[in-house]
Amino acid sequence: MNQPDVISLTPTPDDYAYTFGGRPPLVTVRPGSIIELTTEDCFGGAVRGVADLPSEVCVFPYLNPVTGPVAIAGAEPGDTLAVHFVEITPARDWGISSTFPHFGALTATHTTAMLHAPLEERVWRYDIDVAAGTCRFRAREGDFSVELPLDPMHGTVGVAPAAGETLMSITPGAHGGNLDTPEMRAGTTAYFGVSAPGALLGIGDGHARQGEGEVCGTAVETAMRTTVVVDLIKGGAPAWPRLESDRFLISTGSARPLEDAFRISQHDLVTWTGDLLGLDRLDAYQLVSQAGLAPAANVCDTNYTMVAKLPKELLGRVRAYDGLHDRLRATAAAYLRHR
Amino acid sequence: MNQPDVISLTPTPDDYAYTFGGRPPLVTVRPGSIIELTTEDCFGGAVRGVADLPSEVCVFPYLNPVTGPVAIAGAEPGDTLAVHFVEITPARDWGISSTFPHFGALTATHTTAMLHAPLEERVWRYDIDVAAGTCRFRAREGDFSVELPLDPMHGTVGVAPAAGETLMSITPGAHGGNLDTPEMRAGTTAYFGVSAPGALLGIGDGHARQGEGEVCGTAVETAMRTTVVVDLIKGGAPAWPRLESDRFLISTGSARPLEDAFRISQHDLVTWTGDLLGLDRLDAYQLVSQAGLAPAANVCDTNYTMVAKLPKELLGRVRAYDGLHDRLRATAAAYLRHR
Amino acid sequence: MNQPDVISLTPTPDDYAYTFGGRPPLVTVRPGSIIELTTEDCFGGAVRGVADLPSEVCVFPYLNPVTGPVAIAGAEPGDTLAVHFVEITPARDWGISSTFPHFGALTATHTTAMLHAPLEERVWRYDIDVAAGTCRFRAREGDFSVELPLDPMHGTVGVAPAAGETLMSITPGAHGGNLDTPEMRAGTTAYFGVSAPGALLGIGDGHARQGEGEVCGTAVETAMRTTVVVDLIKGGAPAWPRLESDRFLISTGSARPLEDAFRISQHDLVTWTGDLLGLDRLDAYQLVSQAGLAPAANVCDTNYTMVAKLPKELLGRVRAYDGLHDRLRATAAAYLRHR
Amino acid sequence: MNQPDVISLTPTPDDYAYTFGGRPPLVTVRPGSIIELTTEDCFGGAVRGVADLPSEVCVFPYLNPVTGPVAIAGAEPGDTLAVHFVEITPARDWGISSTFPHFGALTATHTTAMLHAPLEERVWRYDIDVAAGTCRFRAREGDFSVELPLDPMHGTVGVAPAAGETLMSITPGAHGGNLDTPEMRAGTTAYFGVSAPGALLGIGDGHARQGEGEVCGTAVETAMRTTVVVDLIKGGAPAWPRLESDRFLISTGSARPLEDAFRISQHDLVTWTGDLLGLDRLDAYQLVSQAGLAPAANVCDTNYTMVAKLPKELLGRVRAYDGLHDRLRATAAAYLRHR
Repeated sequence: MNQPDVISLTPTPDDYAYTFGGRPPLVTVRPGSIIELTTEDCFGGAVRGVADLPSEVCVFPYLNPVTGPVAIAGAEPGDTLAVHFVEITPARDWGISSTFPHFGALTATHTTAMLHAPLEERVWRYDIDVAAGTCRFRAREGDFSVELPLDPMHGTVGVAPAAGETLMSITPGAHGGNLDTPEMRAGTTAYFGVSAPGALLGIGDGHARQGEGEVCGTAVETAMRTTVVVDLIKGGAPAWPRLESDRFLISTGSARPLEDAFRISQHDLVTWTGDLLGLDRLDAYQLVSQAGLAPAANVCDTNYTMVAKLPKELLGRVRAYDGLHDRLRATAAAYLRHR
Repeated sequence: MNQPDVISLTPTPDDYAYTFGGRPPLVTVRPGSIIELTTEDCFGGAVRGVADLPSEVCVFPYLNPVTGPVAIAGAEPGDTLAVHFVEITPARDWGISSTFPHFGALTATHTTAMLHAPLEERVWRYDIDVAAGTCRFRAREGDFSVELPLDPMHGTVGVAPAAGETLMSITPGAHGGNLDTPEMRAGTTAYFGVSAPGALLGIGDGHARQGEGEVCGTAVETAMRTTVVVDLIKGGAPAWPRLESDRFLISTGSARPLEDAFRISQHDLVTWTGDLLGLDRLDAYQLVSQAGLAPAANVCDTNYTMVAKLPKELLGRVRAYDGLHDRLRATAAAYLRHR
Repeated sequence: MNQPDVISLTPTPDDYAYTFGGRPPLVTVRPGSIIELTTEDCFGGAVRGVADLPSEVCVFPYLNPVTGPVAIAGAEPGDTLAVHFVEITPARDWGISSTFPHFGALTATHTTAMLHAPLEERVWRYDIDVAAGTCRFRAREGDFSVELPLDPMHGTVGVAPAAGETLMSITPGAHGGNLDTPEMRAGTTAYFGVSAPGALLGIGDGHARQGEGEVCGTAVETAMRTTVVVDLIKGGAPAWPRLESDRFLISTGSARPLEDAFRISQHDLVTWTGDLLGLDRLDAYQLVSQAGLAPAANVCDTNYTMVAKLPKELLGRVRAYDGLHDRLRATAAAYLRHR
Repeated sequence: MNQPDVISLTPTPDDYAYTFGGRPPLVTVRPGSIIELTTEDCFGGAVRGVADLPSEVCVFPYLNPVTGPVAIAGAEPGDTLAVHFVEITPARDWGISSTFPHFGALTATHTTAMLHAPLEERVWRYDIDVAAGTCRFRAREGDFSVELPLDPMHGTVGVAPAAGETLMSITPGAHGGNLDTPEMRAGTTAYFGVSAPGALLGIGDGHARQGEGEVCGTAVETAMRTTVVVDLIKGGAPAWPRLESDRFLISTGSARPLEDAFRISQHDLVTWTGDLLGLDRLDAYQLVSQAGLAPAANVCDTNYTMVAKLPKELLGRVRAYDGLHDRLRATAAAYLRHR
């Protein structure tokens, strides 16, 4: 095996993308490359303390900046882009969460339109301790405080959409984007169907941790130092983003209402499982029905996202994508040993 | 502490209920009683092999038989019924799952009405090995087979509904009913708001195991031998069923669309967490948003059910319901030691 | 033709039903009978002016009183009950509308659960002028006032539900109930599938008029003097309530999310149209797609209701239910001439 | 008043747009201009008879071609573009409708994902008689045939979206797009919020007629000769497209689930009515609740669309947008008299 290229990508403020699609690549890399990159938080770093209200310090549509796009040489529509997360490390010792007017699962929004005044806009600042692996929640009213485990992840990972569309980075969909699932952590490989030459990968929206559903609309948002390995499978584009961890096959679906996000993710997992195990469609439906997990990813974004998970131990010796996840794990391990 | 009453409840075929509400109790027990009961599977035991199609051998509305109702002496509307699951053990060495015409998450149904012909009705028979803790899936086409871990639970647990309603046992709602969440396993305490004198508890729909979402519409359905401890809290009725395990507070929501089930469960968990920790509403919203889990329960029944989970370690020394779960755990342990 | 029986039904306060199902009939009538009945408004008459807040003067679950049940002799499960509305006349010179905490389309509710405080509970009192055919809206803030045309109708018309269920009168469904469609006016025939011996018809919730969707949750609510003719078709029970006016075939669907209510109503209209015209399913789908109307009925109740309408002129000489609507129109005309 | 410019716009095959946004204008016109334009049908004219299956003769994403974009000189983000439809005339004596795999309200789709095989793809060809004002449906199975009234309209009318997005022309949203409401007929004025310099108007998807909901996914699709007057209001951009006819104010909402489309449209109509009549929010909510109409536009596209209508007679002498609709009517009448 040749040594992989190692590319460093640190955007300047003007480099950030706020859409998937509609932009030329910042850089083009070869399949197999390792990319060391940095990401800004979803507020563009403008919210630094509890007095910084997002609706005042952020300017729509300059929200949720994404690092990229990165073109992958040779990627063509119909191919499959694999993105393996080697490391995701908070770049600051603090993170921010907030409510935001008309955004979140338990509030009226611009589409779930109601006559209520917005909920209070409130900011929480978390202390992040990377060494201890914790972040600290402090109530704004009263003095309650508690440590939560760090579980760094990226909310936004995706490629240029199909049909020439350009979508805001806060929208999750068939192209990936703002899936906001805690499964997108180090050790996971994400697979995206390619719709534009070069695929045009973007990564952003780091979360020090996130509950399932991202109920209030934001996670513990922070800047990240992240390393990924990218690789290319010719053909085989999945209709919706897939993830693979050491233990699970994971399908995603992003739509409204939430049952459609569920249906998409389950339909894809049934199809994927059936293809891997040589099961007919109903047998795969049955197996996934009894063995699968189905947590919410986000129930706050412009589409909602559900994930569908199957334990890989059910696969026996069968490997998805011919074992690519294991090979990317090995590449990652070698990189971490030798840097 | 006095010795608890131990009541045995083995229904005859005519004893089963097919609704919550609308029936007198089979038996009345005192708070604190232990009830050893048996349940039939959701097919009433009529599906015994792959040739028994549910639409042919079952007669609507005699589906999903429930053992009960059990009246709890002294229970009045506004009270809280606690039901702690001591043991749930498959009573057969086989279980059944099936598709059913116009039922399930990935099919047109009577309400998600479409012009498609129904999917094939197909039955799977699982071998259950209680000692080994496994059940075996066998594909109907081809010879694929795999063992899955047993994780016995009850899909249907509830009380008489409010407002004088009588609801089919397959409907989940504010009264409980067919929640179909794998969290309803041994070691869990369920809390229900009481709406009718005696509460009128019913339990049924045992699952040897179930995936999250119960995608195809049925789990590994089997008859059960189950032991519960019931207890009564005067007042404090939760609006929607709550569960508590050793590790989690769990709120449920049952509604359509699925985001409303999500909203109900999250709203309840936010309220519950805030009440326990003395947090204001927005601080509790924030904490649940970062620390909560949100798996699907069922996305196939007449209402869909989501659960919202908070790790109890965040509560410090605070205990829900004044520590009732721990006391019922102790009662259960004593029972298991001495029987 | 024999003279039809004419039955008068004026409930005492204790006579009102608050559910469909779960009650013996007040009276049994023969098919073909004319029933002159009175109904109370959805507040039970307790809201008489703008200072009477429903949440204070009404007692849950004693909302939405229904006159009935009326048993129709000979009606058996699987039959079709026809209810033709001869006259619907406001019994008062005033009507009431109001917002209600956590009820309505543009507010958080108990199922679309959010952290907002309820909207203001506000009552409007309309002057009703039956002779002029108008009701007058008066703004509560400022002095704006405008006359609206009277269009009297019943929000709640239905029979005992299937499967032994008892449902609150505010729930619309396959049994009818609180459909809240302005199509349920004088001159319309409604068809219900019978699920219990005698069908057990109930009628209530008179509206002096109602916008489509019943957005704020209540219409111009008033007591009514109403005359219906009931008739019985052996067999042929529709899965969901159907209506027929002089100009339209009308199917209803009641479910959540709203697209499922739409799907049910359209599916039924496609089936009905295809059966009447001898079209295959796809041809009927096509014809309804180009010629149908699809207004909202209610988007506020525990299920939402959509209606699907087809102009009867497309049917040529074909008549639904063998021309029953026309015969009931004739019966109604004779009654109105001779009383 | 100066004579308005009259611009003719007949696209070549390469001129058609398949998105809103992402394209430079074909032409720039002054506010007040009359534009005589032609549009191709949603199939790009490739389906000419019942043997031409859309999935075979059309190439994704080259569906639903749009004539434009037309830039309006001086239009800036935050302004309001008014588009008055003077004439919409079928340009052919035939139109096409069809089912399409995984598209429509009564079928599994890519987002309402299910395990069913697609419904049959079937094409219907309608004869259009502009002089008689009819189009003729012919069943594909059997010999049923019936004339339907022509009611020409445009399914797709919109401007460049906000936030730099580029959206497929088949998506309805806040920018307009594929609203697919029969209200978009001659005599109607549509109002769009401007998000990009020049507004970038596009018009396409002519329908000889359409049922409410566009249930099967397509209307009676045909090429059109259409004349519009465009005008510009500085500022006042509505959040969602509005329409105005001689008789109604009409708000639109496009979202999923369908109740959110309903909520958006009702919320906008409440706000609009309140602003025009000087009513507070709850009084406007009440008035719209009793006086409004709420038909489905489409329940098949990537977002669903509902419209909310208020009779203008309730406004007394008040005129929306300072009477612009009446002035555009007059311009249209003068144009029609003098051409």
